[in-house]
Amino acid sequence: MKLYDNPHAPNPRRVRMVLAEKGITYDREELDLGAGDNLKEEFCAKNPFAKVPVLELDDGLCLSETPAICRYLDEVSDEGSLFGTTPKERAIIDMWEHRMESMVLYPALFAFQHITGFFKDRMTPVEDFGKESAKNFMKSLPVLDAQLANNEWIAGSQFSIADITAICAIDFARIVKVRVGDEYPNIQRWYAAMKERPSYAA
Amino acid sequence: MKLYDNPHAPNPRRVRMVLAEKGITYDREELDLGAGDNLKEEFCAKNPFAKVPVLELDDGLCLSETPAICRYLDEVSDEGSLFGTTPKERAIIDMWEHRMESMVLYPALFAFQHITGFFKDRMTPVEDFGKESAKNFMKSLPVLDAQLANNEWIAGSQFSIADITAICAIDFARIVKVRVGDEYPNIQRWYAAMKERPSYAA
Repeated sequence: MKLYDNPHAPNPRRVRMVLAEKGITYDREELDLGAGDNLKEEFCAKNPFAKVPVLELDDGLCLSETPAICRYLDEVSDEGSLFGTTPKERAIIDMWEHRMESMVLYPALFAFQHITGFFKDRMTPVEDFGKESAKNFMKSLPVLDAQLANNEWIAGSQFSIADITAICAIDFARIVKVRVGDEYPNIQRWYAAMKERPSYAA
Repeated sequence: MKLYDNPHAPNPRRVRMVLAEKGITYDREELDLGAGDNLKEEFCAKNPFAKVPVLELDDGLCLSETPAICRYLDEVSDEGSLFGTTPKERAIIDMWEHRMESMVLYPALFAFQHITGFFKDRMTPVEDFGKESAKNFMKSLPVLDAQLANNEWIAGSQFSIADITAICAIDFARIVKVRVGDEYPNIQRWYAAMKERPSYAA
C-alpha cells in the first residue's frame, strides 16, 4: 500500500501513527501542499476533494478521510485494536475520537488556515474566525484535562485512536503558538506518556 | 434508551433517521437550544461539550457524538448494516460519511451559526466566515453529483449512513437559503429517492 503524505499536516500524521502502532510497512509519496501538488488532476483522480492523506491499496482502491483509513488499517491488522472490541467499547472510543477531531483538531486546523493565510491561493482566510478557532481549541482543554484526571488514556484504560488524534492536534496547534499550559497537569502527564511511544515520531 | 433531542438541529436528526431505519423504539427529551437547555449543569453531566444529541443507554451510559451513536445503534441492531459488512465496504462508507460530514454538513452548520448569530450569547459569530462556509457547501456539490451519476446511493449500491448525513446537511442548509439547484440532476434524483424512505420524516 502507498500513502500520499505530507510531513507537516496533522491528518497524514494520524495515519502514520496508526501504521507505526500496527507495525505495517508501506510506500509513501510526499506532496508539497503549498505548491499545490494536491490540486493536480492526477491526485484529484485519487481524491476528488484534493486532500491528503490518501491510502492507495494494492488493488488500486484509493481511500481518503483519515478516520476511514485508520479504521480500515485497524481492522485488517492482527495487532490489538485501536478502536475497541465490543460495541460499547467502540462507541466510547468513537465518541472521544470524534470529540478530539471536531473540538481540538479542527479548531487547530482552522486557526492555522485562517490566521496564516497559508492556502490563500485556494481559499479565503477570515482572520477573526482563525482567532476564534484558537480560542475554541483552548476551551476544549478543561474537558480533556478532567477526562485524563480519571483515565490513563483519553478513551479510558486503553490507548486508542482518540489519543492519536489528540496528540496530532495538540502538536499541530503549536504552529500558531497555541499551547497546552501547565494549568492542565493531566494533559501534561498524558503528553509525556505519548512522547514515549515509538509511534510519536511517525 | 433515551435520546436527548432537538427537532431543528441536523445531528439529532441523523440519529433519529438511524433509529427509524433500524426500527428501534426509544424515549426522547427535547432540548430548547436557543434557551440554553443544553448548557445546564444536568445536561453537561451527560455531555461535557454541551451538545445534542446524547443517547442515554439503559445502564446509564451517555453516548454523544453523532457518528459514535449511529455506529453503536447499527452494531447492536439486527437489521441490515448502514456501515457495511467487510473492512473494505466499511472503509468506503466511512470515507463518504466523513466527506458528507466535514464537507457538506459542517459548512451548513457554520453558515447557520455565523450568518444568523443564533448562538451569539455563547459564541462569537464571524459573518464573513459564515458566507465562506455557504460557498464551501456549494463547492462540494459537483463532487457529490458526479458520485451519484455512477452510484444509486452515495457510498455505492447500498443505502448507508453517508446518505443520512448528506440529507440532514442538505435539508438544514435551506435555513440559510443554501439550496441544491437543478444543475445537479443526480443529487436531485437521489434526493427524490431519499424522500420516499419512511425514515426521511424522522
